[in-house]
Amino acid sequence: MTTSEPSSGPVGNKVPRTERGRQTLRKLLDAAAIEFGEKGFHEASIIGITGRAKTALGTFYTYFDSKDEIFRALVTDLSDRVRSTVGAALTGRADGGALETEREALAAFLRFAGEHKEIYRIIDEAEFVDPASYRSHYESTARRIFERLQAGGRSGELRTDLQEAHAWAIMGMNVFLGLRYSIWSEELPADQVAEVARSILKDGITRPSS
Amino acid sequence: MTTSEPSSGPVGNKVPRTERGRQTLRKLLDAAAIEFGEKGFHEASIIGITGRAKTALGTFYTYFDSKDEIFRALVTDLSDRVRSTVGAALTGRADGGALETEREALAAFLRFAGEHKEIYRIIDEAEFVDPASYRSHYESTARRIFERLQAGGRSGELRTDLQEAHAWAIMGMNVFLGLRYSIWSEELPADQVAEVARSILKDGITRPSS
Repeated sequence: MTTSEPSSGPVGNKVPRTERGRQTLRKLLDAAAIEFGEKGFHEASIIGITGRAKTALGTFYTYFDSKDEIFRALVTDLSDRVRSTVGAALTGRADGGALETEREALAAFLRFAGEHKEIYRIIDEAEFVDPASYRSHYESTARRIFERLQAGGRSGELRTDLQEAHAWAIMGMNVFLGLRYSIWSEELPADQVAEVARSILKDGITRPSS
Repeated sequence: MTTSEPSSGPVGNKVPRTERGRQTLRKLLDAAAIEFGEKGFHEASIIGITGRAKTALGTFYTYFDSKDEIFRALVTDLSDRVRSTVGAALTGRADGGALETEREALAAFLRFAGEHKEIYRIIDEAEFVDPASYRSHYESTARRIFERLQAGGRSGELRTDLQEAHAWAIMGMNVFLGLRYSIWSEELPADQVAEVARSILKDGITRPSS
């Protein structure tokens, strides 16, 4: 998984047109992730971000008008990177079916969260600082899961009566397994955690009838 | 479900010894839930809380030393009320088995969240204002779910290899189904949402083999 490539799509008001500009924007966003992740939105400062990014203050304002704006751009950037990281993990594999897809999507997310622990704090703080981005992150994530569930229904592997609520249930499992096993402790490896979720989606939690 | 009874256990430093004192404490906590829920921690004020509770400022300081302290007490109070509300819903029913218990626990939680929509914002803000309470809320909730899963294993209904991670997965499903269907919209009734979760726990999401 590469974490140094620029986020897809424009962030902030001013989209860089050169490779050098894209690198500077990336440095600012990476620095903002550390600054907001460590200090929280209210204590974080633009000076703190440019200090970490080793850029001039004027450079910051080439890309963003305010602390609010880079925070909003960062939430979009993290949301995009979760999507592209999970997407890359799924396209890189032979098609093992719908359940295997969900298992692999969760494992990729858990690894990403473990390597970018600040993501929880930043997305969670968006509920207060930028509610529209918070909602959009979860709505778009649930939509992608639901599309995969519908594909699994069409292929015959999954039930055909799965609803949007099933996607929200799966997303919730994933988010809380990440909180517990990627952020708060890493006592279980990502693959083992993802296997727990897969086993629930495969057979539920009831004892198999013999 | 009664919401006017005092929370179990002491909240704040000063536990009221009289019924009148308990009622005043309850009024302050209910007012705090509205104040913090509407304004968020930073914008909320002690004056705003006592104004809503129609109590004197001096009365506030009989029970709490600061805004931080009543916020912490409120998180504990909400966590306790979720527990007692779910507990009451479970004891009030004939034992329909482990899956029915999880379904009913979720339905009771969804109804509580729908009637106290501020709970999400307050518990979520605890991640920033009072991280220990935030963590304790989820750890104790997961522990209760895990104990129910173990009881279901002993009774023969559930798999006996269920781990703590299964409880976190179930809690995550419940939290996100609540966010989507009790807070953001109520387009699906609580019973129907709880049935989605029950069906996942019963058979997973795969197509039944015919």
